[in-house]
Amino acid sequence: MKIIIINGPNLNLLGTRETSVYGDQNFESYFAKLKSLYPKTELEYYQSNIEGELINKLHETGFSYAGIVFNAGGYTHTSVALADAISAIKTPVVEVHISNIFSREEFRHHSLIASKCKGRISGFGLDSYRLALESLLH
Amino acid sequence: MKIIIINGPNLNLLGTRETSVYGDQNFESYFAKLKSLYPKTELEYYQSNIEGELINKLHETGFSYAGIVFNAGGYTHTSVALADAISAIKTPVVEVHISNIFSREEFRHHSLIASKCKGRISGFGLDSYRLALESLLH
Amino acid sequence: MKIIIINGPNLNLLGTRETSVYGDQNFESYFAKLKSLYPKTELEYYQSNIEGELINKLHETGFSYAGIVFNAGGYTHTSVALADAISAIKTPVVEVHISNIFSREEFRHHSLIASKCKGRISGFGLDSYRLALESLLH
Amino acid sequence: MKIIIINGPNLNLLGTRETSVYGDQNFESYFAKLKSLYPKTELEYYQSNIEGELINKLHETGFSYAGIVFNAGGYTHTSVALADAISAIKTPVVEVHISNIFSREEFRHHSLIASKCKGRISGFGLDSYRLALESLLH
Amino acid sequence: MKIIIINGPNLNLLGTRETSVYGDQNFESYFAKLKSLYPKTELEYYQSNIEGELINKLHETGFSYAGIVFNAGGYTHTSVALADAISAIKTPVVEVHISNIFSREEFRHHSLIASKCKGRISGFGLDSYRLALESLLH
Amino acid sequence: MKIIIINGPNLNLLGTRETSVYGDQNFESYFAKLKSLYPKTELEYYQSNIEGELINKLHETGFSYAGIVFNAGGYTHTSVALADAISAIKTPVVEVHISNIFSREEFRHHSLIASKCKGRISGFGLDSYRLALESLLH
Amino acid sequence: MKIIIINGPNLNLLGTRETSVYGDQNFESYFAKLKSLYPKTELEYYQSNIEGELINKLHETGFSYAGIVFNAGGYTHTSVALADAISAIKTPVVEVHISNIFSREEFRHHSLIASKCKGRISGFGLDSYRLALESLLH
Amino acid sequence: MKIIIINGPNLNLLGTRETSVYGDQNFESYFAKLKSLYPKTELEYYQSNIEGELINKLHETGFSYAGIVFNAGGYTHTSVALADAISAIKTPVVEVHISNIFSREEFRHHSLIASKCKGRISGFGLDSYRLALESLLH
Amino acid sequence: MKIIIINGPNLNLLGTRETSVYGDQNFESYFAKLKSLYPKTELEYYQSNIEGELINKLHETGFSYAGIVFNAGGYTHTSVALADAISAIKTPVVEVHISNIFSREEFRHHSLIASKCKGRISGFGLDSYRLALESLLH
Amino acid sequence: MKIIIINGPNLNLLGTRETSVYGDQNFESYFAKLKSLYPKTELEYYQSNIEGELINKLHETGFSYAGIVFNAGGYTHTSVALADAISAIKTPVVEVHISNIFSREEFRHHSLIASKCKGRISGFGLDSYRLALESLLH
Amino acid sequence: MKIIIINGPNLNLLGTRETSVYGDQNFESYFAKLKSLYPKTELEYYQSNIEGELINKLHETGFSYAGIVFNAGGYTHTSVALADAISAIKTPVVEVHISNIFSREEFRHHSLIASKCKGRISGFGLDSYRLALESLLH
Amino acid sequence: MKIIIINGPNLNLLGTRETSVYGDQNFESYFAKLKSLYPKTELEYYQSNIEGELINKLHETGFSYAGIVFNAGGYTHTSVALADAISAIKTPVVEVHISNIFSREEFRHHSLIASKCKGRISGFGLDSYRLALESLLH
Repeated sequence: MKIIIINGPNLNLLGTRETSVYGDQNFESYFAKLKSLYPKTELEYYQSNIEGELINKLHETGFSYAGIVFNAGGYTHTSVALADAISAIKTPVVEVHISNIFSREEFRHHSLIASKCKGRISGFGLDSYRLALESLLH
Repeated sequence: MKIIIINGPNLNLLGTRETSVYGDQNFESYFAKLKSLYPKTELEYYQSNIEGELINKLHETGFSYAGIVFNAGGYTHTSVALADAISAIKTPVVEVHISNIFSREEFRHHSLIASKCKGRISGFGLDSYRLALESLLH
Repeated sequence: MKIIIINGPNLNLLGTRETSVYGDQNFESYFAKLKSLYPKTELEYYQSNIEGELINKLHETGFSYAGIVFNAGGYTHTSVALADAISAIKTPVVEVHISNIFSREEFRHHSLIASKCKGRISGFGLDSYRLALESLLH
Repeated sequence: MKIIIINGPNLNLLGTRETSVYGDQNFESYFAKLKSLYPKTELEYYQSNIEGELINKLHETGFSYAGIVFNAGGYTHTSVALADAISAIKTPVVEVHISNIFSREEFRHHSLIASKCKGRISGFGLDSYRLALESLLH
Repeated sequence: MKIIIINGPNLNLLGTRETSVYGDQNFESYFAKLKSLYPKTELEYYQSNIEGELINKLHETGFSYAGIVFNAGGYTHTSVALADAISAIKTPVVEVHISNIFSREEFRHHSLIASKCKGRISGFGLDSYRLALESLLH
Repeated sequence: MKIIIINGPNLNLLGTRETSVYGDQNFESYFAKLKSLYPKTELEYYQSNIEGELINKLHETGFSYAGIVFNAGGYTHTSVALADAISAIKTPVVEVHISNIFSREEFRHHSLIASKCKGRISGFGLDSYRLALESLLH
Repeated sequence: MKIIIINGPNLNLLGTRETSVYGDQNFESYFAKLKSLYPKTELEYYQSNIEGELINKLHETGFSYAGIVFNAGGYTHTSVALADAISAIKTPVVEVHISNIFSREEFRHHSLIASKCKGRISGFGLDSYRLALESLLH
Repeated sequence: MKIIIINGPNLNLLGTRETSVYGDQNFESYFAKLKSLYPKTELEYYQSNIEGELINKLHETGFSYAGIVFNAGGYTHTSVALADAISAIKTPVVEVHISNIFSREEFRHHSLIASKCKGRISGFGLDSYRLALESLLH
Repeated sequence: MKIIIINGPNLNLLGTRETSVYGDQNFESYFAKLKSLYPKTELEYYQSNIEGELINKLHETGFSYAGIVFNAGGYTHTSVALADAISAIKTPVVEVHISNIFSREEFRHHSLIASKCKGRISGFGLDSYRLALESLLH
Repeated sequence: MKIIIINGPNLNLLGTRETSVYGDQNFESYFAKLKSLYPKTELEYYQSNIEGELINKLHETGFSYAGIVFNAGGYTHTSVALADAISAIKTPVVEVHISNIFSREEFRHHSLIASKCKGRISGFGLDSYRLALESLLH
Repeated sequence: MKIIIINGPNLNLLGTRETSVYGDQNFESYFAKLKSLYPKTELEYYQSNIEGELINKLHETGFSYAGIVFNAGGYTHTSVALADAISAIKTPVVEVHISNIFSREEFRHHSLIASKCKGRISGFGLDSYRLALESLLH
Repeated sequence: MKIIIINGPNLNLLGTRETSVYGDQNFESYFAKLKSLYPKTELEYYQSNIEGELINKLHETGFSYAGIVFNAGGYTHTSVALADAISAIKTPVVEVHISNIFSREEFRHHSLIASKCKGRISGFGLDSYRLALESLLH
């Protein structure tokens, strides 16, 4: 059972970036822990700051993987192209957000991709990723 | 460790109501299964169709319980009073929705309570409740 | 054949309240006349100012009665929960309004429940209720 | 007692047009049945696709007839001129719609003429016309 | 020097229609007085309730007449087609309104044709027509 | 002279709830002081979290009391039904708010009930209630 | 194979009207050339400035012709009635515009009829009509 | 019979300012001509760039003069205070504009003062003032 | 203890201006009575129709007086500069309005200065000023 | 004569992606057919999911090619940068869409690039590309 | 070479007013330093809280000075009259703001005058003025 | 002291692209001159049309450089991801624009990145870059 976590723009800076909002743990160390929690799942990780590369990765994994955990970062609120990519593939996509996006700026309350995903989890810090995984493994 | 699941309007009809959207399982049988999954947690359930009674229950549990899993149903989109109640209490509240509210009517995309909750889980059917519980037990 | 008329907030004051808008007849005496006009129909009446009690009554009657005539009063314009309740039940609901809501304040022009009802009758004074009954008996 | 039913654009195609929305009965045969139901009422029928001809007919009948049953079709949502015509005449006008316009496109939810009419009946199929007649004969 | 006054929908009812807003003089008698005030001007009058006929008349007079005084009535606020007709012709058009449209309903504050006309005069009762004539004769 | 103070949702938590916004005094002790300041006035107090019960209390007191001091809490911004209740009764209602609602979230700037009340006092902490009383006793 | 080109308001002035926007060729001479290009197609032409007459022509041809090329002119942006007429008929309708309507006024960017048509071609001058024909003959 | 022309901000630069929009005649010379056209009318002129001084002048003349011709310039679109001043006085005020404000920026299409004035004349260049005078002398 | 009442535009006409809205008492006589009610308070009064002079007066008194009672009149809804002035000074400002601004035109419902003031009192006629004073003396 | 077809995001999945909307033919086989239809035209094809690469390709071909047929996919509705690229180059660009974007989600009705293109063709399935080519070859 | 710095409302309080936003230096001392930095430039300074006086100063200097550095303060967001004044004069105007207005309240993001100025500099504290000067001297 | 100028989409075409808006100088030659003006500053230049590559460059330089001068071109108005990148780094970013974006299309008036930058300079042609540099060197 293959599942991929795809992280969008600026999430490579996790642990350095606005630590009061996003916490001070970097994603690589978190990912290592997560893998150890789910030893039976073939868990992959991909990050890009380029919208089109995220689309490419969705296309590449979206017909054979069992699930995609997707944090589209800032593209969540602006990308019709990513929303179309999610509609175009077969693998279920779970949208995650680290922070509670509803207690932040107004423009973060809208999501172009939410309606195309299976479900959405937000506000639990990095634990949002584990919950997304849980939902796919269920 | 005491955790309460609070369900808002029309969720008493789960299993009968619009089964293509909400599934055909009633909440009572789901709740029984959930309790058996988490035997160490003191898990309670409350449902009311009356906005003010939901506020009362939040007040009653919101200073002593370890967590509240809250599906405010239709009040999610219209109730400033419920949002104020969540702000007023100490216990963390996790907002859940059974359906993917972002693929439904426009007015369901807005939430008055989301910004006051710890986090939000939507779209996983009844499994949304389990994930919410997971997040609180973490 | 059982039909119930459900009246929402402030309609208990009919005959006393803003008589230039709503007329000076109270609903009880009107209801008596209406019953005498339709002796073969089992006609009931319920009124509450509490949104959740209106939901309860819709649930209670909405699977066995032949029709519901519903004047949701001020909740017409604000209640997603009532709209969900109408969607959740099987009995056809006819929305009525005493006054011509389109010649009143802008916020009365929108209805959250209209799309969930079978039809809508407004502006004929108390006669709106009789017309709603006519539509259900047809 | 003279009452006229005035139908606006595309209602001449009733029975052929989008039958899932408007039903498969043409208006002429329905009108014949309606006349037989109300033998004492002098009932007339007029249809035009031309906005200005509808205005002309409202002017022509609006000072001597006892009532007008008006389905303005698509002009309902766009015509200030028809609204002004209804304000300009003395005969009470009852607005009718065959379908439940509130469960259709957003632009059908607004009516420019509703505030100028005596009342409004929508969603009961062709029976909306009979109910409108009932309201005028009351 | 030929000048035509073109009146749009419902202005044929002037003197009968909502006299508190539009006054109780009919346009024909006013027009006779106006002609006698400007004996040197070849003054014509046209009225129609049909939008397309107003367009036809603008086309017909709009390349040879010296001026057009135009009260588009309710079409003022809704007709792109009339605005296009004014742009398409050569004769200067002066827009007039009898009432002060800015102290009436919100939708009367917008004009689709105003930007295409030479100027606009509103609020002076029937005297608006004389002022428009004055502006063209200047 | 009978005057009632009616408090809406979450105001039962005054003194515990968001003390930086609402202060740390509970309403009961404040009310006792207020009564002692106005010994000649028959001063009552009522609180409920249920919208419909607030409507009931307005109906019950709104035809015989000399004045109502009303803090509708979160319902201020969402309840057409409460606004209708205030219109329906005879007793003058003074709207009060503890905090300066204009320096808080945007949705708190709108009030559905303000236009139906005699006047409005906001921002003076609990002293807003005394000022409201002063205005009624004047 | 019968195909009709229907032109809406002001298109009778093509060649005279705002030549910088619409070109200086009149439609009749263009239509003659178009017919000679497609000798096997029974090609007809109709123009009217009256919205309701355009509806009449759509009804008349919309059940027997193989295709309709429709330039609704200014009614494109305002006519629900024309949109309903297109929905009501069986013949596929291709919407055309001579100018690039997206580089003109904001109100020309919206189309009420576009969603009801098979496709839309705009901005190619009179060649838009030939392309529409091409699409229908394909 | 005393009539005053009041000009608002930047109108002192008439003849120098944006001559393609406002023409190249200064107001003083125009005013001299206007006075000679109406020798029997006691015609005054006042200009200020200060909103409050315009209010002062309206107060000063608004109870004794027979008419006020008012071009509020840029304050037309932003000043509630000037609108209130016009409501507060007894003398009829006629609003004038030199340019056709409807063919200029969107924000010039709205007027806060129009609803408070007797009538409005715009687009006729400086002749707008003469027409305003004509309307008051009528 | 020095307190100043500052009145904005058109309030110099109190007693003459729209007496059905603002009452028929002029402010000077009211102010005299008010002073006699609070003999221990050094009470001043200032009025100007000029926005910038109101700013000057706020600057002048805003660092030494104990309180400012401010009715900004029409500037309430349009003046960022006055809002900035209130933020810039140290003295608490209480906003007052004579009429119930929420039952008047829509544009009066918004206030640019409310969020910068200590509190707000509206709808009590001239008594609003006394209540404001009460709040400052508390 | 060199013409390039540029396809934006997700169009590489044509034939696999949402076949009910986009059909089941992949673009490569369609392109082969198209080339055979226009043997005299040097026809190229480029696809990328990366917005900036589409800009690069527009820059690269936009000064020497005779025409560009551009389907920007989801970037149509969100990309100012692509619109700027089209403005920056000399080669005429024809915008195409496979589906009728006006009968889909609201956000697809707006186009940031349409005003910068020569013309626009939408709704004809893959035939939209041939029509675009036709328009450029004309 | 004469250049004037014009400061609008509340900028006279610089150094005292909201020092966390605007810094604690008063403008006079800053201005002295600035003059010493540009000994060859004839540098003047003017401040007023009155909108109309700012217009007067723009008129007075706007035909002879080489440049105007303008901080319109709160009038930036509300004054059409100041925008018109800038359009009316010949001297280039550079708009400056001390704070980063885009990280403050929403209403500060809009500027009525920006489109009329040569350029705009914001967010650099008092150094914004020096940069503006630099731009004019270039 | 290292400072980098980062240019976004289409700015590689400077000197060729819309020269009436952006001037006819290419950026490379301008950059050479700029370097010679500031010999002590280590000045670098980077341009990309790809949003994600701009993010990468901001990450790469944003923790060690002394300043970033950033012209995000069309991404200014649409990119939450770039705004997040600016928030995520430590180096101060100054936003520049060549043209006066406020006198261009409405959608260019909004900036998603402005609130995250230190300051903003627009409208001075290429000199905007020098002024930005000046601000950083200050």
